[in-house]
Amino acid sequence: MSSNPLANKAQAWSALFAEPMSELVQRYTASVGFDQRLWAADIEGSLAHAEMLHAQALISDTDWADIQRGLNQIRGEIEAGQFEWKLELEDVHLNIEARLTELVGLAGKRLHTGRSRNDQVATDVRLWLRGEIDGLLELLRQVQAVLVERAEVHADVIAPGFTHLQVAQPVSFGHHLLAYVEMFARDAERLADCRRRANRLPLGAAALAGTPYPLDRERVARTLGMEGVCQNSLDAVSDRDFAIEFTHAAALAMMHISRLSEELVLWMSQSFGFVRLPDRFCTGSSIMPQKKNPDVPELARGKTGRVYGHLMGLLTLMKGQPLAYNKDNQEDKEPLFDTVDTLRDTLRIFVEMLAGLEARADNLRAAAQKGHATATDLADYLVRTKGVPFRDAHEIVAHAVRVASEQGLELAALSLAQLQAIDARIDADVFGPLSLEGSLASRKVLGGTAPEQVRAQIARHRSRLG
Amino acid sequence: MSSNPLANKAQAWSALFAEPMSELVQRYTASVGFDQRLWAADIEGSLAHAEMLHAQALISDTDWADIQRGLNQIRGEIEAGQFEWKLELEDVHLNIEARLTELVGLAGKRLHTGRSRNDQVATDVRLWLRGEIDGLLELLRQVQAVLVERAEVHADVIAPGFTHLQVAQPVSFGHHLLAYVEMFARDAERLADCRRRANRLPLGAAALAGTPYPLDRERVARTLGMEGVCQNSLDAVSDRDFAIEFTHAAALAMMHISRLSEELVLWMSQSFGFVRLPDRFCTGSSIMPQKKNPDVPELARGKTGRVYGHLMGLLTLMKGQPLAYNKDNQEDKEPLFDTVDTLRDTLRIFVEMLAGLEARADNLRAAAQKGHATATDLADYLVRTKGVPFRDAHEIVAHAVRVASEQGLELAALSLAQLQAIDARIDADVFGPLSLEGSLASRKVLGGTAPEQVRAQIARHRSRLG
Amino acid sequence: MSSNPLANKAQAWSALFAEPMSELVQRYTASVGFDQRLWAADIEGSLAHAEMLHAQALISDTDWADIQRGLNQIRGEIEAGQFEWKLELEDVHLNIEARLTELVGLAGKRLHTGRSRNDQVATDVRLWLRGEIDGLLELLRQVQAVLVERAEVHADVIAPGFTHLQVAQPVSFGHHLLAYVEMFARDAERLADCRRRANRLPLGAAALAGTPYPLDRERVARTLGMEGVCQNSLDAVSDRDFAIEFTHAAALAMMHISRLSEELVLWMSQSFGFVRLPDRFCTGSSIMPQKKNPDVPELARGKTGRVYGHLMGLLTLMKGQPLAYNKDNQEDKEPLFDTVDTLRDTLRIFVEMLAGLEARADNLRAAAQKGHATATDLADYLVRTKGVPFRDAHEIVAHAVRVASEQGLELAALSLAQLQAIDARIDADVFGPLSLEGSLASRKVLGGTAPEQVRAQIARHRSRLG
Amino acid sequence: MSSNPLANKAQAWSALFAEPMSELVQRYTASVGFDQRLWAADIEGSLAHAEMLHAQALISDTDWADIQRGLNQIRGEIEAGQFEWKLELEDVHLNIEARLTELVGLAGKRLHTGRSRNDQVATDVRLWLRGEIDGLLELLRQVQAVLVERAEVHADVIAPGFTHLQVAQPVSFGHHLLAYVEMFARDAERLADCRRRANRLPLGAAALAGTPYPLDRERVARTLGMEGVCQNSLDAVSDRDFAIEFTHAAALAMMHISRLSEELVLWMSQSFGFVRLPDRFCTGSSIMPQKKNPDVPELARGKTGRVYGHLMGLLTLMKGQPLAYNKDNQEDKEPLFDTVDTLRDTLRIFVEMLAGLEARADNLRAAAQKGHATATDLADYLVRTKGVPFRDAHEIVAHAVRVASEQGLELAALSLAQLQAIDARIDADVFGPLSLEGSLASRKVLGGTAPEQVRAQIARHRSRLG
Repeated sequence: MSSNPLANKAQAWSALFAEPMSELVQRYTASVGFDQRLWAADIEGSLAHAEMLHAQALISDTDWADIQRGLNQIRGEIEAGQFEWKLELEDVHLNIEARLTELVGLAGKRLHTGRSRNDQVATDVRLWLRGEIDGLLELLRQVQAVLVERAEVHADVIAPGFTHLQVAQPVSFGHHLLAYVEMFARDAERLADCRRRANRLPLGAAALAGTPYPLDRERVARTLGMEGVCQNSLDAVSDRDFAIEFTHAAALAMMHISRLSEELVLWMSQSFGFVRLPDRFCTGSSIMPQKKNPDVPELARGKTGRVYGHLMGLLTLMKGQPLAYNKDNQEDKEPLFDTVDTLRDTLRIFVEMLAGLEARADNLRAAAQKGHATATDLADYLVRTKGVPFRDAHEIVAHAVRVASEQGLELAALSLAQLQAIDARIDADVFGPLSLEGSLASRKVLGGTAPEQVRAQIARHRSRLG
Repeated sequence: MSSNPLANKAQAWSALFAEPMSELVQRYTASVGFDQRLWAADIEGSLAHAEMLHAQALISDTDWADIQRGLNQIRGEIEAGQFEWKLELEDVHLNIEARLTELVGLAGKRLHTGRSRNDQVATDVRLWLRGEIDGLLELLRQVQAVLVERAEVHADVIAPGFTHLQVAQPVSFGHHLLAYVEMFARDAERLADCRRRANRLPLGAAALAGTPYPLDRERVARTLGMEGVCQNSLDAVSDRDFAIEFTHAAALAMMHISRLSEELVLWMSQSFGFVRLPDRFCTGSSIMPQKKNPDVPELARGKTGRVYGHLMGLLTLMKGQPLAYNKDNQEDKEPLFDTVDTLRDTLRIFVEMLAGLEARADNLRAAAQKGHATATDLADYLVRTKGVPFRDAHEIVAHAVRVASEQGLELAALSLAQLQAIDARIDADVFGPLSLEGSLASRKVLGGTAPEQVRAQIARHRSRLG
Repeated sequence: MSSNPLANKAQAWSALFAEPMSELVQRYTASVGFDQRLWAADIEGSLAHAEMLHAQALISDTDWADIQRGLNQIRGEIEAGQFEWKLELEDVHLNIEARLTELVGLAGKRLHTGRSRNDQVATDVRLWLRGEIDGLLELLRQVQAVLVERAEVHADVIAPGFTHLQVAQPVSFGHHLLAYVEMFARDAERLADCRRRANRLPLGAAALAGTPYPLDRERVARTLGMEGVCQNSLDAVSDRDFAIEFTHAAALAMMHISRLSEELVLWMSQSFGFVRLPDRFCTGSSIMPQKKNPDVPELARGKTGRVYGHLMGLLTLMKGQPLAYNKDNQEDKEPLFDTVDTLRDTLRIFVEMLAGLEARADNLRAAAQKGHATATDLADYLVRTKGVPFRDAHEIVAHAVRVASEQGLELAALSLAQLQAIDARIDADVFGPLSLEGSLASRKVLGGTAPEQVRAQIARHRSRLG
Repeated sequence: MSSNPLANKAQAWSALFAEPMSELVQRYTASVGFDQRLWAADIEGSLAHAEMLHAQALISDTDWADIQRGLNQIRGEIEAGQFEWKLELEDVHLNIEARLTELVGLAGKRLHTGRSRNDQVATDVRLWLRGEIDGLLELLRQVQAVLVERAEVHADVIAPGFTHLQVAQPVSFGHHLLAYVEMFARDAERLADCRRRANRLPLGAAALAGTPYPLDRERVARTLGMEGVCQNSLDAVSDRDFAIEFTHAAALAMMHISRLSEELVLWMSQSFGFVRLPDRFCTGSSIMPQKKNPDVPELARGKTGRVYGHLMGLLTLMKGQPLAYNKDNQEDKEPLFDTVDTLRDTLRIFVEMLAGLEARADNLRAAAQKGHATATDLADYLVRTKGVPFRDAHEIVAHAVRVASEQGLELAALSLAQLQAIDARIDADVFGPLSLEGSLASRKVLGGTAPEQVRAQIARHRSRLG
């Protein structure tokens, strides 16, 4: 028997197998090319497992010392870029285990006691994802903070509020930015919920049925800072809910980014001209010398599809899989990794880019003056000061808009006489509500666009975000 | 001016519009055919809104009384199937409002004060979904309870545990059923998280910018039992996260059902013959007289695609939408409604069907005896009693399996002499671990398959499920 | 034995089944609520099958006459709305067969000779879909025709061509519309390819293995106008490729519609103001009296998600299904039906709406004058008339744009002296290329935006579309 | 001015840009890390473009010679792994162009005449994809050929045909394999259709509007072996239909592979034991020494999700994009590349693995004898020889199955007396149809499972596949 049966995976199966694995199969099934990135989690998980084996007297003091020494050396080798990853050892787990056995002999072979790759890989992915979620939560905090800061700068900037991309009512540009703070805050809530469910320990489930060794799974969970233990071994090795749930939370975050990106692209278009982005976030054209293109939001919008696709891929992967572990599950990693990378890189660049976002207040104001933006205010004026039922007021104002349009005027530009010709109850005090500032200031209901309300929200967010 | 401008929507826009809406457009854009089902939520929301308008002295005592009277009458008409839904009134909201105005006149016209369809529809969908989530949580509780009950009946039934659909290790059939309890428990957690985020009040956001009326939004939230108020009006009218998040939670639940269904279909196949389902859950064939087909799990497995599709549809819907409300959002309802229906009907039938699930213990045992199911136990025996490092033990057993296979025997059927010829350290006490019962009983680690552990889990679930 | 064993499906399985089907199961598994719409295809397929049975002397002259008479009567009953659809008969096929047996007795029972519902339903869906594809091809032809007509009207209207939604180069508005003609032409190509593969005959595959009756499958295919016969019985009953391929082609068509819709929504926005749509295609607001919203393109854009979702649902449905027929497949119908309905209704309304599309030439021209739209023309001028390498010319013009921008001017508004200060090689003949008309007219390469090229394309499309 | 403005992209925009591109943006937007693989297509396209520029006298003889020399040198450098790819040059196109200018000076700068990256990248991707499709078509041919060969070997092997995974009717195992030949044949048809639409030339569309240079686009198309020219410049640069259509065709192929994989996994499971795969295509377990797992089909089944996801990603990408080119489109490449890789690697390994597929005829026959597989044959016997209407025969046989089941017998094992007790019309000649061989041989209808029909299909496939 080989002193290190893992030295060559093709030989690892050899006692039972009549021929070595086809080289094509080796390449098709190997995951070490992408699951390398789990190495730190793999070592952390192995140390926690070994610590418990030792505490349960399943391995000796010497074994425990050897394992620590060996794994620390491996950590150093990997960090230094000196670790030799071998395709024939298939994955990150066997690569590290084989190297450990090379380094410390029997103790390395004992590390796998009461453990299978099935529960090991599930543990590693959860540990790794937990760390990534923490990084993403910090980036979501930053993107909210920068939006809050930009909202404060622009709290009094009047912008056209759209529905159906038609001018609807004037809003504070700061208020508009705060809408995205709400979205990213919900994304953070969802990630935190997902973290809670991901942060449970599969280790101890072994291949699928648990193990005859008297493992103390709760001790391992505590060592690893996990919030609980997976309570059913079959479920523990086959559950990929946490990966799907994470990808879904990321898909929603990317959806929000796609909405903000769409708006940035619109706002940068010459016909809108609502904002400026610093040149360092724009790109030119190889043919058109005058171009400054908002590549970053466009690309971010495009990357939404990538994350949606990963979500669909993972859901498909798990559909109809019988218990317990099937090799299909190896396909969970690349979409998950790419989802993390995509969301992280996108949030990072948005934090920087949004910090440079400048509204072009004149253009925004001019756009808000189109489209009879204060028509609803006239209707509300009739309701509040003249007791006209809302539905009737709506009709009166529709008529007034028509009159104004036929004269090529905005509603707010009609004279008092013209307005009274439409409805005699209208008085001179109508011009307050009809003005952009008047309209804006009046909407001070909780969550409304009045600058004072916007400032109240900013204060709330500041206190919430710390 | 019409005394009821909503009586005909084509005329509602008429003061401004040069021609009535095309009949083709009316049919293309109308939603009353499917959003009718929101009627109870619409009335509940309107009553809460009116109660607050009255409390804030925005409508009179008489108006408030009229609105209550009118809405109660409408409720009665709908419940009695006597309400006339009109396509030209486009949606459930305008249908009810128009009827209210017909019934109570001016008070009806005043109900829409400080409100838009944008915040109204968002509120209605949230209220409705909250109720549906509560129903689904109860069904998830029931499906867990029935699985726990079946697990108890089958705690000592030995089944082959599979990985890669190859016999891996013997497990308790009850343990196998409990794996699904874990899955459905997570589904319930996710639905509860989603409920929390859905249960927030958009009303008061009005069209997009808030309203000049001094609404008390927190009062409305309290009246409706909501946990908070949407804090940004632009976000409030355009946020459909809760619909997507719900559909995702439902997609995961359907994924779990697809896995259980796949197993039921396998287990019913003659080659497995692991379980029986009552005839009332099976169907025959129009051509093959002998068939009893497991139509229900197959169809449930198929319906997974439907819910996955709805999730993708909703994500696509929201991708790249600028603020605030766009008509695209009307497309949120049908996938959401169908997701609720699909999950509810499927859970309901699974509760009934699983109650009739009977394991065929003899077939399960026979299958568990194939495939050298206790090979790992032999390796563990060598590790635990002989101090062989796990990796070496693995190799010894692989060799033993090969020897047994070459003789057409199962590993557990080798004689002591044969085993000792493979490794002299093996003693007569090996036959305990090598037996199915011995293997099973030994895996009593937390979450393991030992019947005593299965019973402990059943007790935990019972206490958890109430 | 019942004289009509299909009279009640619950009894159809009764000889073998110990209990009737659960009522819950009946409702869960019944498809008659939605597959009714296959009735005409079902009758057509049955007639072709019976005609062949008769030609092969498998049924008598009398049987053949009875079957024709019975099916014709059923056709009449259904068309008149007098046919009683029974849930307990599960689907359209058993409903019609049971009624036939009621009407004509033994001949009805003989119709199912050599046939199973598995091949029958596959045949019906293909026949039905073929008809729908033909209708969609005609609608795609119409939508192309109306775009070509609008392109002709607007061939000389100068519009800003965008990349990255930044003004890039002037284009003919007609040319822009023709881009969509190309897209819809490809959609029609794909539908025609799909039709070819859908138009093959499963009938004769029976349940899964073929049949011992000497059926003449090619005769049935000829009778039904099909282009071939499915050559493997197992594949014939389980193949749903045609449904997926159709849904994919529809998804691409909806994607194109979503692009056009996005542009219509942008163009209608006040900041663009590029087009007008007739009022009958717009809707108003329940709260904002001034609104005219482009609901139709917004809703069409939203419906893209619905069709994408159906595609994902169908792909999920078929993933990992073992041969041959499984009940999962029943779930193919609703997404397919809804895809057909969505695409048909959307194309129909676009044909009408686009006929009313009017460009606002002044606004388009004004927008084209922003953003230095002819900067590339200046670079090309330097290359073509002065021999400057393109990459150097690009740099010169970038510099010129900067100079113009700093003076608040468009590039085309610089004086000759200013231009010569940037590059002395520039002459007075530069103002041709720098003008919008000059730029446009110069791009007369095949597929370019020059009005003469646009007219050539229009002629090509006219001849192609007939 | 720099003699090579592309030497550093950050400076390429500098005449217009106030600051260099942020390094974060450079990394976020660069594509050279993945679009390198287009290099050969990029050079091929550039040569064809330059050849035409020369033919049209737009560049000189010397320029044309320089460009050829430079591009050939670059080709050599890349093939030798000596080309230095620079992130700051963003993509494969600018990297090659910058190097060309470095090598040949002005001629390199002239290559981009009348061309933009927008039409260049579209051309490159189409050229590259066309080559990949050809490779995939050959692999699809091979996988069909190996299945046909295996079908011939197993034409007379009797297997249980399943519907609902219940034994339905006996089939030839070879017939079963041929079902997959039909599927892969359709996949090849779809790829060929897609190739036709992909094989059209965008070059000459320039940035979006065509170009003022008198390019001969049809000449370039001929040089490149393309079947046509994209007829609208705006469409040409923004069309990604071909990428989506290809990914859809690949998704269907993967779906078929997922079905075959599911069956291989089932067939390898001990309870079925229907087939053997060579050890070199199986893998073992790190914990369970006895395991031989069908990793390849499982992983292939899992990879279905990956391709479905890419399809969803690409559809999302294009949803709602306004004309013409947007940066989002850069996201088309990675999913497309990975789809090609996944399908190619999977087909390649299936070609090898299927060549080693061996049916276990005894187990298949034993399984076919369960489940009253010839019950339909008994019904058909009653119809054909006794004139019993099919529906009545169905009932009689259902009754017979029940009788047999109650006695623990298969239907085919009932004695003549027992059968006659059920229906007196049954004669001794019933045992032919009731036997597996009799049943099989009788289904010789076109597409049926009779071995003679299977051999006819094999001959057809052989002739078709060449």
